[in-house]
Amino acid sequence: MSRPTPIPRTPSAYAYPLLIKQLLHAPLAVNPEQEIVYREQVKHSYWTMRHRVGQLASGLHSLGVEAGDTVAVMDWDSHRYLEAYFGIPMMGAVLMTVNVRLSPEQIVYTLNHAGARLLMVHADFLPLVEAIRDQLETVERLILIGEDTLSLESSPLPECFAAEYEALLAASPPDYPFPDFDENARATTFYTTGTTGLPKGVYFSHRQIVLHTLATMAALTGAPRQGRVHRDDVYMPLTPMFHVHAWGMPYVATALGMKQVYPGRYAADQLLRLVQSERVTFSHGVPTLLHMLLSHPDSAGVDLSGLKIIVGGSALPRGLAQAAVNRGIDVFTGYGMSETCPILTLAQVKTTLLGDATTELDVRTKTGLPIPLVDLRIVDDDMRDIAHDGKASGEIVVRAPWLTQGYLGNSAESEHLWAGGYLHTNDIGSIDSDGYLQVTDRIKDVIKSGGEWVSSLELEDLISRHAAVNEVAVIGIKDARWGERPMALIVLRAGLSAEATDIQEHLRDFVRRGAISKYAVPEQVLFVDAIEKTSVGKINKRLLRERYQAVAPHAGNPL
Amino acid sequence: MSRPTPIPRTPSAYAYPLLIKQLLHAPLAVNPEQEIVYREQVKHSYWTMRHRVGQLASGLHSLGVEAGDTVAVMDWDSHRYLEAYFGIPMMGAVLMTVNVRLSPEQIVYTLNHAGARLLMVHADFLPLVEAIRDQLETVERLILIGEDTLSLESSPLPECFAAEYEALLAASPPDYPFPDFDENARATTFYTTGTTGLPKGVYFSHRQIVLHTLATMAALTGAPRQGRVHRDDVYMPLTPMFHVHAWGMPYVATALGMKQVYPGRYAADQLLRLVQSERVTFSHGVPTLLHMLLSHPDSAGVDLSGLKIIVGGSALPRGLAQAAVNRGIDVFTGYGMSETCPILTLAQVKTTLLGDATTELDVRTKTGLPIPLVDLRIVDDDMRDIAHDGKASGEIVVRAPWLTQGYLGNSAESEHLWAGGYLHTNDIGSIDSDGYLQVTDRIKDVIKSGGEWVSSLELEDLISRHAAVNEVAVIGIKDARWGERPMALIVLRAGLSAEATDIQEHLRDFVRRGAISKYAVPEQVLFVDAIEKTSVGKINKRLLRERYQAVAPHAGNPL
Repeated sequence: MSRPTPIPRTPSAYAYPLLIKQLLHAPLAVNPEQEIVYREQVKHSYWTMRHRVGQLASGLHSLGVEAGDTVAVMDWDSHRYLEAYFGIPMMGAVLMTVNVRLSPEQIVYTLNHAGARLLMVHADFLPLVEAIRDQLETVERLILIGEDTLSLESSPLPECFAAEYEALLAASPPDYPFPDFDENARATTFYTTGTTGLPKGVYFSHRQIVLHTLATMAALTGAPRQGRVHRDDVYMPLTPMFHVHAWGMPYVATALGMKQVYPGRYAADQLLRLVQSERVTFSHGVPTLLHMLLSHPDSAGVDLSGLKIIVGGSALPRGLAQAAVNRGIDVFTGYGMSETCPILTLAQVKTTLLGDATTELDVRTKTGLPIPLVDLRIVDDDMRDIAHDGKASGEIVVRAPWLTQGYLGNSAESEHLWAGGYLHTNDIGSIDSDGYLQVTDRIKDVIKSGGEWVSSLELEDLISRHAAVNEVAVIGIKDARWGERPMALIVLRAGLSAEATDIQEHLRDFVRRGAISKYAVPEQVLFVDAIEKTSVGKINKRLLRERYQAVAPHAGNPL
Repeated sequence: MSRPTPIPRTPSAYAYPLLIKQLLHAPLAVNPEQEIVYREQVKHSYWTMRHRVGQLASGLHSLGVEAGDTVAVMDWDSHRYLEAYFGIPMMGAVLMTVNVRLSPEQIVYTLNHAGARLLMVHADFLPLVEAIRDQLETVERLILIGEDTLSLESSPLPECFAAEYEALLAASPPDYPFPDFDENARATTFYTTGTTGLPKGVYFSHRQIVLHTLATMAALTGAPRQGRVHRDDVYMPLTPMFHVHAWGMPYVATALGMKQVYPGRYAADQLLRLVQSERVTFSHGVPTLLHMLLSHPDSAGVDLSGLKIIVGGSALPRGLAQAAVNRGIDVFTGYGMSETCPILTLAQVKTTLLGDATTELDVRTKTGLPIPLVDLRIVDDDMRDIAHDGKASGEIVVRAPWLTQGYLGNSAESEHLWAGGYLHTNDIGSIDSDGYLQVTDRIKDVIKSGGEWVSSLELEDLISRHAAVNEVAVIGIKDARWGERPMALIVLRAGLSAEATDIQEHLRDFVRRGAISKYAVPEQVLFVDAIEKTSVGKINKRLLRERYQAVAPHAGNPL
């Protein structure tokens, strides 16, 4: 024999498929009275949640939804969204989480592209949906999610709606017979946008979501001290549930049987109130949300100590991390993207690195350590491994059992994503001797000068430490001799001034300390009034490159 | 559409199979310098372990082992066994863990039945292997595991051996190209023995072992306080590695990147020395092993506080649990069997039940809560669910993604095991309102009297509390009127005496307190000199039933 032998199966033996419904066994057996909370409006048990999940499936079925159909949701973070996370995939349908922050045109595009047959819409989005309704090519039925059911009862349902969410559940039996099926069935889909091009649809199977849940559980709970999550934690997302399954955490929290709190539409005062009243201990979100929690006028009156927050989406600034730690928050980075379900790494601090506040902060703001089953490499252009010395950098490529297997209906981009059998993150990073990954740049933003990579993010970080600098962007400018050279664009602080030579001298300090190479110091330092941003608030480097390439003088030797 | 749609796959996308090799990604990325210890003889890093796993596969390949072949191991708990746990399945071969406690005839039977092609043998088993060698029908090659390599170098390898383990590794390259293959490939096999019949072979795939590892990790690490395991724990098995993959814990410990300690052949003084010198914090074993650790003369001099021990294999007696807790040991029950890979439940104490010592001990000695993905039911003869009231009992049947899909080459027993699509544990249990399972009996030992089930284990526990009772067995005796009636067989303590009526009165105390029904009190209480045991030390109830059925008088009404 020269092939491994598949195990024989007894005809009656249950060939257990990894389906989302299987995540409910443990919490319902161990802790069914645990609470699920929605704002100040709803507080019910896991039993009730399971009951309503059955009602949702029965209700959708009564409206014609069948296995394989796509059901789209536009809602804020809610107990209803959690029900959709389970009920829609469990019946064999596909949950489409609609990014309500997209433009109306993009929302139309994504709903049509995904072929959504049914759309559940929170009342807040009624004007939007009424405006785009004529352009929806596949949506046959709409369900209204009324925040206040009583007021809906007194007024008739708008004509275009087939049902109201609570009324539908109330009229539907809880005992929907959730079937077994292929674990590779599509469970979810959503769209990711770049700075260019149409939104791209990613998709995840039941198997992928179950495995992401198990590995994330093991990584979060296995930490000895810092960054440790456990079954008594109280969970509340600070990530929209339309964004990569809220990082998969509602599945993790449910499988662990945690108390869960859903805050509805984000408002800082409401979030702070819920943290306090429901004693929230575990959350996650982008830096902006954390900043909002810390800086809101109500914040000082709320005890945030004991709260664990994973920050992702963009790099966790050191100053923000310090401010959070000062409030007693256990903050650390999580890394991933829409294509990766999303968790790849968590910046949990190893016990050996605990004790020194500066070191701890260094680690919390790194990109992190791979979670179980993640095969993460940094590679050169020929997919050869780069040394793990904390300095050398390469493209981050990954394998894990939960990565999107392509973009919906886009085979060219799909092949590009998976070139060479690894998913290309389009991020550049280094790995230090402790194993921590540090993303240093987006591959499109990295500057390749004389064959060496110069990190635009690192240069921005160092330049921003100069007292006169308010904002900075570093871009690569084409150069005949070196291929590319860095250029710094700086907005000065009001009332302060600096010359290009001041900035260069400031950077040479870091060259002397060995922090950066001398090739990284830009010859061109331009002072500008403002730096263009994208619609989601990130620096628009593509635009800056186009604009400033034209004005760049012919570059000389590196300094 | 009416069927769920499998996700489309980009040709270049990696369809990540759940293979045992994938468990090594995280520990090698996060903590490769972590230690693996074998007695006082070996201490090396995970890097070295991974290196040796590659050498083992290369060495086996050079001896003709191919994917699909079965490689059998006879060794004590060692770093070598850990290498076999990974290296053999990772090359696509099947690891057969030989139960060295079986009779020579049974060992011959299992090796032949499994079709083992290669056998690795610790020097301690040389006399045994030489005695059975002629009867081995499929074994082509033998590898000697020499405990002391130096002495082997000076004397020639016995003729029948193709290689010595360390010499083979030293001569083999570490860069074996472990291939990808079907995750349903058989990874391991071993044999389980009952009180009757031939040993039966169970088998587990790569997928099953990976999923068992992930779910067990999540369950052990997710505990808020009691029974919590984490990445800084130091692991040492007190379960032989030939017994159900040492409960799968070497895979769990490796995937978490724990320091691991392997003690070789069990000797209480050596185990205690290692607990102390290597600061072991996490282990698991049968009650006998725990008793041995606590009662050995050296024990008092060893600080056992902080040690977590999962006890399984048979019920954790309350007195033993109390003695362990008195020493500062965090002891609790784990439940499973050879057929279930094995973990199904863990008796971790919920935070709400912590604080009262009696309640804590009650919970620690229960059978436990199901771990993630386990679908565990207690059912009546028609597979209908029994109430979870802590009193009603039924057969425990389960589904999980890691249960043996049958017995090797035994379709009748396989179908019996999986009748109705659930694996039948042959255990009887109840589930209380907190969700804890309590095994009350083996299905073959339970006594059915007047349509009610009487637990022989519970009666034995209560009778054993009588001061004069040294040992007790309760069996069911056929009864014309009631179907069956319990009979108690008692060995008295030296120098003490009791009458049947004393025992009955002792039991009626528990009837009055509502602990047992009045039907449970046996009319027949016999005092005997000894109670027959099986080869593995369990009470041989089958034999007792045969013997005492004959002497039983015609039973009257229940008391």
